[in-house]
Amino acid sequence: MAKHLFLLPGDGIGQEAMGEVRKIIAHMNDAMSADFVTDEGLVGGCAYDAHGAAISDADMEKAMAADAVLFGAVGGPKWDSVPYEVRPEAGLLRLRKDMELFANLRPAICYPALAAASSLKPELVDGLDILIIRELTGGVYFGEPKEIIDLGNGQKRGIDTQIYDTYEIERIAGVAFELARTRKNAVCSMEKRNVMKSGVLWNQVVTEIHKAKYSDVKLDHMLADAGGMQLVRAPKQFDVIVTDNLFGDMLSDVAAMLTGSLGMLPSASLGAPDGKTGKRKALYEPVHGSAPDIAGKGIANPIAMIASFAMCLRYSFNMITEADNLEKAIATVLDQGIRTGDIMADGCRQVGTGDIGDAILKE
Amino acid sequence: MAKHLFLLPGDGIGQEAMGEVRKIIAHMNDAMSADFVTDEGLVGGCAYDAHGAAISDADMEKAMAADAVLFGAVGGPKWDSVPYEVRPEAGLLRLRKDMELFANLRPAICYPALAAASSLKPELVDGLDILIIRELTGGVYFGEPKEIIDLGNGQKRGIDTQIYDTYEIERIAGVAFELARTRKNAVCSMEKRNVMKSGVLWNQVVTEIHKAKYSDVKLDHMLADAGGMQLVRAPKQFDVIVTDNLFGDMLSDVAAMLTGSLGMLPSASLGAPDGKTGKRKALYEPVHGSAPDIAGKGIANPIAMIASFAMCLRYSFNMITEADNLEKAIATVLDQGIRTGDIMADGCRQVGTGDIGDAILKE
Ligand SMILES: CC(C)[C@H](C(=O)O)[C@@H](O)C(=O)O
Ligand SMILES: CC(C)[C@H](C(=O)O)[C@@H](O)C(=O)O
Repeated sequence: MAKHLFLLPGDGIGQEAMGEVRKIIAHMNDAMSADFVTDEGLVGGCAYDAHGAAISDADMEKAMAADAVLFGAVGGPKWDSVPYEVRPEAGLLRLRKDMELFANLRPAICYPALAAASSLKPELVDGLDILIIRELTGGVYFGEPKEIIDLGNGQKRGIDTQIYDTYEIERIAGVAFELARTRKNAVCSMEKRNVMKSGVLWNQVVTEIHKAKYSDVKLDHMLADAGGMQLVRAPKQFDVIVTDNLFGDMLSDVAAMLTGSLGMLPSASLGAPDGKTGKRKALYEPVHGSAPDIAGKGIANPIAMIASFAMCLRYSFNMITEADNLEKAIATVLDQGIRTGDIMADGCRQVGTGDIGDAILKE
Repeated sequence: MAKHLFLLPGDGIGQEAMGEVRKIIAHMNDAMSADFVTDEGLVGGCAYDAHGAAISDADMEKAMAADAVLFGAVGGPKWDSVPYEVRPEAGLLRLRKDMELFANLRPAICYPALAAASSLKPELVDGLDILIIRELTGGVYFGEPKEIIDLGNGQKRGIDTQIYDTYEIERIAGVAFELARTRKNAVCSMEKRNVMKSGVLWNQVVTEIHKAKYSDVKLDHMLADAGGMQLVRAPKQFDVIVTDNLFGDMLSDVAAMLTGSLGMLPSASLGAPDGKTGKRKALYEPVHGSAPDIAGKGIANPIAMIASFAMCLRYSFNMITEADNLEKAIATVLDQGIRTGDIMADGCRQVGTGDIGDAILKE
């Protein structure tokens, strides 16, 4: 059966990185009749340039209909002063919200070949394997009111609203507990219950659902600020971390940085299983941004984008062997010392975006 | 003229750490007629035990009247299930709010003797000297509505509100720019303007006041998630960071952890200068918490509390020489290899809370 992929390379290095994934898709179609059908659209600054919105309704429809969306990156100085409603990020946020992609899976793993590239001492990150589960459709990202009011007298007021309902916390906690069972069976939930009412509710709901349905999983609670510190102090203490949209944004970026290079890390954003087919809407994207400073030079590291496609094989198409092989190929290429500039080290060979893709393909 | 200090040791190791500051105050009164007059109150769990509130009105009044408040730490498992309104942290939040301590100064410095204790590679933190300026009386900490609503059907809704007005952003940015002038003259402002309207306003106001009054200071803007990553990647790129209450909470804890030991770092929370006297209300507290696991054993590191008193000498009493001397004494004691357990290293001598205080006093 044809597998429909909708590609949204976006801006900056998103374009180049997606090129390497296209090669892998073509190879899988040729060599193993994988039957991927791809279509492509615009998101972010390039979509704004083309039709004045960060994503068009037509492309949104295609994203909704696809089996999976592959997303590159959005943004760049060129669009720094476009109106808030059509800024590049609005495209990504609309995709997350309209597709109801509430569960963002952000693995922070440290490839052994790269432990030395981390700013942390190698022994603290060697073999690191954390999975951050970030709530992605709620919290301060989408709560209303969200506005700037003119108070007169030269004063303005900026307002954002953090909202979480029981069901939103339950479903993200469920994802965390279920994935923990396939790993080291430990979940750490992070919030600021000492300051935020949404944190109080978060803590209660996670505790209750744990007791009711997942008491076999080890559960800890940590204040989000302490969690950030512990990530820097001793990241290997964690298995699965579950947290809200904004804390997840901060904490997963800190965790990503611990691993040595942001250019390496993929993410998956999943919706709820469909009642009839059991299929989840899904979007896969690298954790890194559009890196406008190096875009178009053919030097960007495509590994995060390729690893995002591996997650896509795993979660959207249940192609576990293929996903394993692709991930192994990434590790092998790193072991061989073939590197883009961002992860260069003594004794390695510096290559371009395309060479990395080719080397992974060869494996 | 008598200098009125109000001491709030609070819970856990707050008690022991404050004991060492008392020694220093007594010494300064004896040896240099410093004329400190101290009074003492309860805050946090111990205040709740004594009179059912995290701080009593009587103690609040004393705090308001004092020249400076020295605060230890609050909280512990004993009070984990007291009602939200009287939880230990409520005492600290009330002090910040009622005293209008909008400017929280959190230096993250790395004592050369401790660079090896950081989880970061020593060359990344050796000589690190960042000042984080955190807005402390606004944002999601205090905005209304802040509540949990029962929606029926077993569903609840947790709500918190992030609010910033122009004047709040202006005054905290002003503090950051002014302090930057006494340092390396560079400010980095952090928010999430790509997601939050309060972040959009924050960015605008900081940019405008910079242009109008502080254009001699170098100003950069960074998204808060990227800021967290950059702190881990290359912390020495920063001089002064200015950010909101919640991001400041997260980022200053990450920054504190970078330096090797949280047990080392002080903070100052300042109000606006009084129109008549020019004096600022002020509270000084260590960045570490109450550490209930080691409380009462005489092994806690009192250095953050002592360094907080040094900040008090500097900012509340303009006793610059005395502050410098106290800070130098801390560095000397560390150089001598006299350490509490949290910062022990090979070849150092492990001592208790009191020994550190005595050693610093000797210097
Ligand atoms: C681009 C931006 C809106 C986004 C976010 O804040 O969620 C990014 O930082 C991320 O983490 O995916
Ligand atoms: C104790 C708590 C309320 C407090 C905060 O969140 O501000 C603490 O984490 C801090 O950073 O001073």
